[in-house]
Amino acid sequence: MTVQPPLDHFEPTADSIQAARDRIAKYAVRTPILESQELNGLLGARVLIKPENLQRSGSFKLRGALNRALQLNTAERDCGIVTWSSGNHGLAISFVAKHLGISATVLMPYDAPKTKVEGVRLNGATVRLYDKTKEDREEIGAQIAAESGAVIIPPYDDPYVITGQATLGAEIAHQAAEMGMSLDVALFSCSGGGLVSGAACGVHTLMPRAAIYSVEPAGFDGMALSLATGERRKAPALCTSICDALLVPAPGKLTFPICRKHLAGGLSVVDDEVKEAIRFAYRELKLVVEPGGAVALAALLAGTIDITGKTAAILLSGGNVDAEKFATCITTVPTSGI
Amino acid sequence: MTVQPPLDHFEPTADSIQAARDRIAKYAVRTPILESQELNGLLGARVLIKPENLQRSGSFKLRGALNRALQLNTAERDCGIVTWSSGNHGLAISFVAKHLGISATVLMPYDAPKTKVEGVRLNGATVRLYDKTKEDREEIGAQIAAESGAVIIPPYDDPYVITGQATLGAEIAHQAAEMGMSLDVALFSCSGGGLVSGAACGVHTLMPRAAIYSVEPAGFDGMALSLATGERRKAPALCTSICDALLVPAPGKLTFPICRKHLAGGLSVVDDEVKEAIRFAYRELKLVVEPGGAVALAALLAGTIDITGKTAAILLSGGNVDAEKFATCITTVPTSGI
Repeated sequence: MTVQPPLDHFEPTADSIQAARDRIAKYAVRTPILESQELNGLLGARVLIKPENLQRSGSFKLRGALNRALQLNTAERDCGIVTWSSGNHGLAISFVAKHLGISATVLMPYDAPKTKVEGVRLNGATVRLYDKTKEDREEIGAQIAAESGAVIIPPYDDPYVITGQATLGAEIAHQAAEMGMSLDVALFSCSGGGLVSGAACGVHTLMPRAAIYSVEPAGFDGMALSLATGERRKAPALCTSICDALLVPAPGKLTFPICRKHLAGGLSVVDDEVKEAIRFAYRELKLVVEPGGAVALAALLAGTIDITGKTAAILLSGGNVDAEKFATCITTVPTSGI
Repeated sequence: MTVQPPLDHFEPTADSIQAARDRIAKYAVRTPILESQELNGLLGARVLIKPENLQRSGSFKLRGALNRALQLNTAERDCGIVTWSSGNHGLAISFVAKHLGISATVLMPYDAPKTKVEGVRLNGATVRLYDKTKEDREEIGAQIAAESGAVIIPPYDDPYVITGQATLGAEIAHQAAEMGMSLDVALFSCSGGGLVSGAACGVHTLMPRAAIYSVEPAGFDGMALSLATGERRKAPALCTSICDALLVPAPGKLTFPICRKHLAGGLSVVDDEVKEAIRFAYRELKLVVEPGGAVALAALLAGTIDITGKTAAILLSGGNVDAEKFATCITTVPTSGI
């Protein structure tokens, strides 16, 4: 029987993060730290780039999915997994399910990127598309779980998942330490907050003074709003965003208290800034980064935060982007001063 | 005064390669080794991917350029550098020249990719465009050198440059050894042969039994032809190739004897195979690879060589590609069975 950690004031600890690192080590890649002289020069800073687009399944989401799935007991494995996801968590769950021989059902919105839906199907999982405007994905997921006995692995508001994402923060801090550096600042993309809450704890196990920031698409920046007001708030979400992976408008119940304690603040970026970051990654880093994966880089390039003279880490959180969208982005010449 | 190594039977040695590694360590990135479960699964092999598109200046060419430029004496530095290049060697030379405070002139063909010409200019070097069909770049280079006293750093047929590229082979072999593996096979892209000759020596310092292959675009596969016939031969070059970096139709005077001794053979790939490799790198590796940088991957994916059950290393040699060309490539659906 899996023992669920207590949820009151839950946060990943140095011990639980280390245990997760050991648990997932066989399946997850220790992605490298990259640097760009061009970026360092532009910002007058040292920026350590963590490319989790190079992670298996194409995003950091593999870490949380692994940390949960590897703790399922035999009876739970036999019943399968159900989850909901705009794409990357679904890709990670389906990847893990395939490799562990577990069945999986993934609820995905009709407007999810083609490459993500196809990827989940190629991994052998069942895709159930739903209408974001009319259906409640958590309700459908709960119903499937009730009928089939499948275990729900939510995309962010889950202790195992948060602790899995925390391995990323710990890994970055360890890699920085190996390079003889200490982090002043670290920026992580944010949707429901599973990544940034966990990663902040992970960084702080080794470098407690690092200032951690969430980065969200403007209009969907519920974490920034919540951090500013001190309580869980929902962003208006009246606009659209190119960042298909970051459209959750409010932080989670578990993730927000952790972020309130560990984060220095929340940043927001607009689509044009994200596109410029994708072009920069194409041109200077030779990396394929998806819109939601480029927000931390976008915040630096747009000057949303000044890191002059500092050592910073940024996450490129994923690289699963439809070829047509990527092609349009890299061949578009910006009209503004960006 | 720089002492030129003797050219008869020149080949990089374990000592000269190690000296080059130490020399360039401060400026060149030790690019990581990446793996793709997808690729390993497709081929039934273990493939270590060396992404030199992540190298500074966007290609492996930095290594040779650094190894030569760092051995210029003060008088030579004052007179500057002149070279000719389809792009990547020019980018590397201009990058090195900028960082060492040396002036540089780069002869480039009119049809060189825009991003390469612009990149050389952005680095502050002088670009002299020439007409491939009417002008001899080596003659123009010699004339500039004679008039200005500038030192010629040729793109491949030069002991310093070859030894610089050899650091790449040594680095791959060391990284494989660190991972507890020994290489059965290694594939390197080839134009004039500076890379593959040096890299073969580098791999063989540590793993003398590895079978090394050059990979060239069909029609420009002078190395394959020369290896097969035992003497330096020029490929017909009657067609065109998407691989702008690999259009030298014959191996160099210095590079061929080394390759004859160290290579197991020469492979060729056609444009459609290269495009498929670029798409694979986009989709599965999340890497931006230029056509000439993708030929080794193309040879594996196309089954040009069977590596079932083996441990292989392949080089992704560069990532400097015009956005329009890359966009067209990743959005094109192949019509054949490839």
